[in-house]
Amino acid sequence: MIEPLTIPISITWKDHHIQLLDQRKLPATIEYVDLKTVDQVFEAIVNMTVRGAPAIGITAAFGLAMGAMQSTKDQLEEFQEEVLAIKEKLASSRPTAVNLFWALDRVSKAAESATSVNEAKTTLLQEAIQLQAEDEQMCRDIGEYALELLNSSEPVLTICNAGSIATAKYGTALAPFHLASERGTQFEVYACETRPVLQGARLTAWELQQSGVNVTLITDSMAAQTIRAKGIKAIIVGADRIASNGDTANKIGTFNLAILAKEFNIPFYVAAPSSTFDLTIDSGIEIPIEERHPDEVRKIQGISIAPENVPVYNPAFDVTPADYITAIITEKGIIKAPYITGINSLIS
Amino acid sequence: MIEPLTIPISITWKDHHIQLLDQRKLPATIEYVDLKTVDQVFEAIVNMTVRGAPAIGITAAFGLAMGAMQSTKDQLEEFQEEVLAIKEKLASSRPTAVNLFWALDRVSKAAESATSVNEAKTTLLQEAIQLQAEDEQMCRDIGEYALELLNSSEPVLTICNAGSIATAKYGTALAPFHLASERGTQFEVYACETRPVLQGARLTAWELQQSGVNVTLITDSMAAQTIRAKGIKAIIVGADRIASNGDTANKIGTFNLAILAKEFNIPFYVAAPSSTFDLTIDSGIEIPIEERHPDEVRKIQGISIAPENVPVYNPAFDVTPADYITAIITEKGIIKAPYITGINSLIS
Repeated sequence: MIEPLTIPISITWKDHHIQLLDQRKLPATIEYVDLKTVDQVFEAIVNMTVRGAPAIGITAAFGLAMGAMQSTKDQLEEFQEEVLAIKEKLASSRPTAVNLFWALDRVSKAAESATSVNEAKTTLLQEAIQLQAEDEQMCRDIGEYALELLNSSEPVLTICNAGSIATAKYGTALAPFHLASERGTQFEVYACETRPVLQGARLTAWELQQSGVNVTLITDSMAAQTIRAKGIKAIIVGADRIASNGDTANKIGTFNLAILAKEFNIPFYVAAPSSTFDLTIDSGIEIPIEERHPDEVRKIQGISIAPENVPVYNPAFDVTPADYITAIITEKGIIKAPYITGINSLIS
Repeated sequence: MIEPLTIPISITWKDHHIQLLDQRKLPATIEYVDLKTVDQVFEAIVNMTVRGAPAIGITAAFGLAMGAMQSTKDQLEEFQEEVLAIKEKLASSRPTAVNLFWALDRVSKAAESATSVNEAKTTLLQEAIQLQAEDEQMCRDIGEYALELLNSSEPVLTICNAGSIATAKYGTALAPFHLASERGTQFEVYACETRPVLQGARLTAWELQQSGVNVTLITDSMAAQTIRAKGIKAIIVGADRIASNGDTANKIGTFNLAILAKEFNIPFYVAAPSSTFDLTIDSGIEIPIEERHPDEVRKIQGISIAPENVPVYNPAFDVTPADYITAIITEKGIIKAPYITGINSLIS
């Protein structure tokens, strides 16, 4: 079957329900699920049908609006109590997801001053739609800035999935490739498979293929050889959290690539929305490295690939010191060293 | 079940037949197969029951001796013709395995001057036993030299399986850890899983556990973070081929690690027997990079982890320029820069 070349979108509001791309089944199966109740939205976040902080936030926002629209309460106060209960339920789906809380707060606050149940319902839905539209615009802006730095005739390397399906559309690190593709220009992109969870192989390779980008998959171990043999001219990655000095936490393997970029004298770019900056921390030293379960490394899709009792070190991400970063690309503009002043003036 | 702590040996001569560790089933199953005919030896090499250039050579040498011992020919000339036929059959099991041809040549040549069938049979077997003993001694010597450079109280990183089961015993890059373990000292070793074929996860993790080494498994993408967080003080790897100037071809991912070693200012060691040097080539530029089937990356143990048609770049190995190598450890001694003179005086 020939698929049309389109930028994949993971969340679509279908008038009265949410349609969600089931990211767990990619790339073998492209399946959309319909979420028609708050319980289904809660479950979809818990069981990782949806992933990516912005995408989770958007899903929760629509979940809150949908739950509110289904309310049969006709007294405003009782209605607002029900909205609060839905909000709390959805907020408990992922206890550490900052973007999730932020999205739920924003949508619920918008309806606080409503004077009728109908007005509140309309406002909640409008706010969720607005939130999704803003995320898409933010990603598009990141992509435009990234295109000022990247040359579409030169191969680029990326890791993990800072992609369209993790956001409203376009993604962050992948935004320039999707944007260029929309305009008829195909980048040559090498995607690291991103062990242990393989987001590069499962998601990025698929997503870039869908939008017609010239993508090639490699294992993480092939990065140095690929840079040398294929003439990679830039590396671009997303970010989980950026400190005041520019130190950047991102998927494990990012720091490896930053060191390779330095050695090969090619630029290393971080693409992330301004909400990724955490100005409460001075540097990356303050970011604790989460360690995940050893079986993520010992097994791949349930199949053992190592002695079942072998000790494993499984950090979920690493911190790349700002010294290794050529530029941080945000929706507000491009930040270069010295990062402390650049971040301070653009973000805070 | 508690396993005794021993250094795994993949090939054992059992008086009239060969006992071979089935490396394909590791680490889930520790299974030995008995090879009682030349056809079985041929098959075991073809289907990769045995892997590792030295181990393949030793297996073939015993296969030739065993086949000769089973001969019913009592005329010396007819007997030698049969030996030649067995040799040619075994040599055809892997068309590009230099070590295989070398081992078969050496064993068959030893019996050329025999004056009786019985003398020839005895000589062939003695030569195969000798070849295995010499390989073990060579690995032990490499291990001893490596122990002059490594400090057992400092964590070390390795990749792939330059191990005991790939040789007669001890291995090359893993020899110092096995030797130290025999003497009651446990190194702390971090093993990269070594995508795409996962020799680190499947073989090195298991092999080092067997001999009581304090081994921890990581994905290849975790190397930089592990060096920083766990205080790795040295990296040691094997080699497939070393050029006259010290440039070293080894499993894909090796060059990545060499760059990390340089950035973290820790030594990067290559451990290999002198037979690994190819003095017919001046530098690594002359080593063509073999590319293997895309499905090695797209699938893991038969399970798809990527879009089935996604383009893949799958180099089997990379070449680390000699500049990145702190020392090359051979059974004849340690070679340091300038490599051209060091290699020339020790090897040729």
